[in-house]
Parts: sequence; C-alpha cells; structure tokens
Amino acid sequence: MGVSERIGRYIENSSWIRRMFEEGIRLKKLYGNNEVLDFTLGNPDLEAPIEVKEALEELIKNYDPKIHGYMPNAGREDFRTAVAEKVSREQGLKVPPENIIATCGAAGGINIVLKTILDEGEKVLFPSPYFVEYFFYVENHSGIPCPVETNEDFTLNTENFEKLIDSNTRAIILNSPNNPTGQVYSKESIQQLVELLKLKNKDNKRPIYIISDEPYRNIIFENERVPSIMELYEYTFVVSSFSKELSLAGERIGYVAVHPEIDDLDRIMDGLILSNRILGFVNAPNLSQIIVKHCINSKVKVEVYKKRMELLCKILEEVGIEFVKPKGGLFVFPRVPIDDIEFCNLLREELVLAVPGRGFGRKNHIRLAICVDLPIIEKLKNKLERVMKKVR
Amino acid sequence: MGVSERIGRYIENSSWIRRMFEEGIRLKKLYGNNEVLDFTLGNPDLEAPIEVKEALEELIKNYDPKIHGYMPNAGREDFRTAVAEKVSREQGLKVPPENIIATCGAAGGINIVLKTILDEGEKVLFPSPYFVEYFFYVENHSGIPCPVETNEDFTLNTENFEKLIDSNTRAIILNSPNNPTGQVYSKESIQQLVELLKLKNKDNKRPIYIISDEPYRNIIFENERVPSIMELYEYTFVVSSFSKELSLAGERIGYVAVHPEIDDLDRIMDGLILSNRILGFVNAPNLSQIIVKHCINSKVKVEVYKKRMELLCKILEEVGIEFVKPKGGLFVFPRVPIDDIEFCNLLREELVLAVPGRGFGRKNHIRLAICVDLPIIEKLKNKLERVMKKVR
Repeated sequence: MGVSERIGRYIENSSWIRRMFEEGIRLKKLYGNNEVLDFTLGNPDLEAPIEVKEALEELIKNYDPKIHGYMPNAGREDFRTAVAEKVSREQGLKVPPENIIATCGAAGGINIVLKTILDEGEKVLFPSPYFVEYFFYVENHSGIPCPVETNEDFTLNTENFEKLIDSNTRAIILNSPNNPTGQVYSKESIQQLVELLKLKNKDNKRPIYIISDEPYRNIIFENERVPSIMELYEYTFVVSSFSKELSLAGERIGYVAVHPEIDDLDRIMDGLILSNRILGFVNAPNLSQIIVKHCINSKVKVEVYKKRMELLCKILEEVGIEFVKPKGGLFVFPRVPIDDIEFCNLLREELVLAVPGRGFGRKNHIRLAICVDLPIIEKLKNKLERVMKKVR
Repeated sequence: MGVSERIGRYIENSSWIRRMFEEGIRLKKLYGNNEVLDFTLGNPDLEAPIEVKEALEELIKNYDPKIHGYMPNAGREDFRTAVAEKVSREQGLKVPPENIIATCGAAGGINIVLKTILDEGEKVLFPSPYFVEYFFYVENHSGIPCPVETNEDFTLNTENFEKLIDSNTRAIILNSPNNPTGQVYSKESIQQLVELLKLKNKDNKRPIYIISDEPYRNIIFENERVPSIMELYEYTFVVSSFSKELSLAGERIGYVAVHPEIDDLDRIMDGLILSNRILGFVNAPNLSQIIVKHCINSKVKVEVYKKRMELLCKILEEVGIEFVKPKGGLFVFPRVPIDDIEFCNLLREELVLAVPGRGFGRKNHIRLAICVDLPIIEKLKNKLERVMKKVR
C-alpha cells in the first residue's frame, strides 16, 4: 500500500462524497452543464473588484524584476500594515502590524495557529454543524477534534461546551458567519462562552484559545456588525482570508491576527512565524499580498449574494421547507423532511446537486450554496416542489 | 506558556542562529549595508527573466475578473501540462500531467509527500550535510529524521545508508545539486543506493521511497545533466520549484511529479491531492501557476552565479582554505581550519557574515551563499586573509 494508514482512512471515509461528486460530473456530461443545477460548491463566483486589476496594472507600470524574491516569513511590511488597520477597525481594538502574519488563506492560517499552540492529544472544540476541514486541521497537529452541538437554530449552546471542556482542551474554533449554516454568533452568546473559558482557565497552566475563523465577516446580509471576539477575550487569534470578499480564492491569501494583550505574545509570534516556515508555506504568495494591499478596502458586490439568498429562502418557504435565514456567508442550510442522503438522491433525479447535512455534522439538513446565478435558483422551485410531493 | 512544548523547543534550539542574525542586523545598522558583506542568505537575487513580466502583461491584456477563483487542489490543467513536458524532458521518461501536482514551492511539495506516505514513527533518511528544514518537515508528519554522513567530499556513502536502513525506514530525501555543499550525486552512486533499496524492499510490505528535492537542477555549472533518479527507481517523487531558476521564491510555486510506474499510483495521487488540501495549501497560488506556465522554458542568467562561484573559489584557493568546488546550486561550503563558530566570529569582526557548518550537520565548515554581486565577493579576499593570519 502506497499511502499511510491515516491518509488511507481519510480517502475511504470521503469516498461517498467523491461518488456524489462523480455522479454530478456524470450528469453534467450527460445532460449539459446548464441543465444540471449545482448547489454544492461554495466557490465565490462574483467578479473580483476592479481594484484587483488596477493593482496588477500598477505593478506592471513600475515593474521591478526583483520583486518576486524571498521575504520575511511573516509577510511584506506593507501588507501587514494594511491588514493591521483593517483588523483594528473591524475588531474594535488596536492591533499593530507586528501582530499580523500573512498566510496562504485562512486554511493556512488555522494550520499555523494549531501547530503553534497544540500539544499532542489536546482537544479542539468547534460548534456543530461545522466546516469539515477542521477535523483534518486538528489531526494534522496531533490534536483531537471535538464537535459541540449547537441549538436547533445553530446558535451557540454554552452548556454543551461546558460538558466537553476539560483540562486537556486547548482551543475552540468559531466560524461566524458560519459555513454551512449562515448563523452569526451573537455578542451575548460569545460573552457567555468567554465567561466559561475564563472560569476554566483558572485551573489550568495554559489558557484555552479561541480561533475566530472569519472569512465571511464581510459577506453579511444585515446591517449589524459581526461581533468582535477580540473585544471580549484576550486569548484570541483572528484568522481570515480574502477569498470571499475579494473573490481571490485561488490566490491563497489570508492572515492571522493575534490579540495584542495575549500572554507570552513574543513567543507566540515566534511560533506562528516558525510554523508558517516549517509547514512549507514559507510565506504567503508575494503577488497576492501586493494585490490585497492595494484593494484592502474593496469588496465584491455582496448585494448579489444577498439577492440570491433572499430568492432561495423565498422558494424554500413556498415549497414548505424549514430553514433558518442566513445572516451571512455563502450557504443556506434547510431542514428536509426525510433522511438527507435520500433527499439529495431525489434532488439528483431532478438534476439538482446539493450536499447532505451529515457531511457537516447534522442529518436531515442539506447545504445549498448561493454561488449560482438567479435564473438557476429560479429553476429550483418546480424541482423542489416535485421532490416535496414525493416525500409527503 | 503560549506555545506547545515542541514549538518551544524549536524556538530555543534555533536561538543561537537568531542571535547570529540579529548581530548581523546590528552590524548593518552600525556600519551601513554596504560595509557588511552578507554571505548568509541563499536568496536568489538575479532578476526574474523578462518572460515573467510578459506573462503579467498578457494576463492584463485579456483580463478576466473571475480568473482568481477556486481551482482543483492539484492545480490548473495548463500548468500541470506544461510541467509534465518539462519533467519528462529533464527526467528522461514520460510523466503525464495527471502525475503532476502544483505546490506552494518545493517546501510545500515535500510536506505533502511526507504527509501522504509516512506512518507515525517511520524514519526518513537524508545525506548530511543537509538542508536543515528536513528535520522539521519530517517531524511535522510524526516521522523520525535521520541524517546519513556523506564522504569527505560530500558524495554519497552507501555503506552509511545500509547501516541505518531498517524495516521502519520509509523514505530518503536526496537534494542534488545540494544545499549547502553544491555536490551533485553521480549516476553511479544513485545506482548503488537504488540497488540497496531494492534489496531492502524485498523484506518489506511497503517500499522505501526516494524524494528527489531538485530546486537547483537548472542552476548548474557544468555541462553534464544532473542524473535522473526516476530513470533508475520507480518509487520516486520528484519535488521542485521555480524559486531559483525563475527567481520567483516569494511567489511560492513548485510541484510534485510522481513516477508513472509507482505501485498504487491512484491512491498515492489521491493522497497527495488530499494532503495539499488538508494541510491548508488548498492549491498553489493561481497567478504563480499562470506565470510559470508562460515561462516554463525560461531561466535566470545562471552564468552570473557561475562567475560568482568561480571568483569565490579562486579567493578561497588564494588564501589557502580547502573546498570542494560546487557543481551547482547557490552555495560554497569550504572547510575552515578552526571551529566553525569561532571562524564565523572572526569573520564577523571583519564585517563578513557566514553560517557555521554545524547548522547543516558538519562542523569545521562554513556556508557562503553566492547571492551577492562580484564586487562584494572581491572585497572578501583581504578580510579572509586577515582572518587566516589570526588562526595560523
């Protein structure tokens, strides 16, 4: 056998998802791309803002053929300074450039944080439904991933956290706005969780950290600001990326921001920078840093995502499918009346592709991405109606 | 304590290198950048070839604001196709695009290979002197790094490999042309090693893989081609990057090429692609792939590196310092007549910065990078002479 025991297990466990995707590809080949309504991929499909092109044009105008060389592992100074200003504004407290590390997207960012803080066998908790990659990220660094059930409406349940936190718990990953649910955790619920953590920290040598995974912070459908965890808790890492708000997912650019009042700040920064180097990222891609620095205050047209979300929710309501209206992000996560895999199979008969909720830790739900145009979403209504007739 | 036990240990162990670098920065501030001769950094300093700029210009001319989105974890099809052609030519056998994965540099490439093949506690051997990052890369994936002494002239010593290989050995990393020695491993010596591996594989359930780390393949100072390991051994991964040959180190672009006749090819490719995703790379940066695809047959002016190497070797000869003349790469690794740290301290008194050989596994040597201009190298002569007078 060519691969390690663990990687072999990963491949086998994900074989059902793969079969599903392969079936989707088969259908698209058979019926044509336009006939198959694909709601599976959370691929930010909006155009990058015009400032991205401008950044490239400017680079060419003043082109320096030595610009592509090595840089400090923490990233370019101009990028770190621009991100520090943005983070300070968004989080409501002053985060200096020295507390910012440029990373290969939020995925790279979460990995370097876990590498830095996790001792072998320590637990990392995250609310369920969850972004499934967290399991891998935690296991990459010899940690133990522990999903924590949220309430029926996907809001945080502090009691469930309390039951699972023990002296071996090192971190909690919070993803808000959430993939797959679109939930935004309220300030009150975070405050409750933080009180719990402060209590637990008293008995421990090392604190429990919060890793706030925020790539959807600016893909938000209501006027209120996504609550800042940094304002409430000093043991916080904010991790984010520009994949969604600038539609730069393929360029792998994000950051880690470390709370300015965290204990042992210098060693933590040293650890993060070392981890960025030794995990093989070395540094976040240079051109991506240059582009983002130029576009730091730009954004894709979020109102387009909002319109799609509104239409999708209207259709779900009309056909009688329960859902919690997303406050942000790229997904709707409705409750379906039968087993989620069966429901997705029925959808597929109608040439509609969706992901069963069990892939995110909650059965009887499905995930629908709003990364398709309005006319595609319009077409969903008749098809959903037919499926719902079958299951009633 | 904020960081994990292991990261804390890494930080402490590297503190002497850090102090050395900080001392260098202090000297530069005190005496000015031009007065301090810095031979420590292997930062490819030549201009990127003009085709890099052309690639960016072309991108702008036909700009598509959706070009920056997600892509398959293995990379863009056009990049994989271009790299497959290059690798096939360099390695002397047909490697199809499906066997190529775009990675965040060679560092990212080695990490995804190790993640894919290593079970916990398996040994990874590499010739010493070595690229020090190998220790971290192997430990990232719960492996045990094992340096294997080369001969006095840094050529491979098969007996030393034989002594260390056991049933728990999973891979050998070969770096040729080598950092820090500039040695190129001969076809005969690789053949000998391969014979040994084939013998050892007979007793084992899983083979011992060779990871051929080749970022300096095209930074070569003699006419002969760097021997192809793929031609000799089917359990080979070739890992490389465009950091050196296109001076794109900051853009983090490289690849893994898998031998077409490796056992269990499909699962290995699945494992590599999965590892690229779950380690947080997700995919190699999109713009870097686009650029490299355009420039795949370009190269920096290697003759500039060669001239620097020749001059440096001439000076070493003149002042009476022993060395093995590098066949490729960005470094000269001479033998010094006293302890390497002491020698570097004496050099520093002359405002010359070099790295002690013990950092690469061999004492009484120092590493000098040829990433500085000829006039800087010229200045070295007097300073080296003065140091040599002191130590005689």
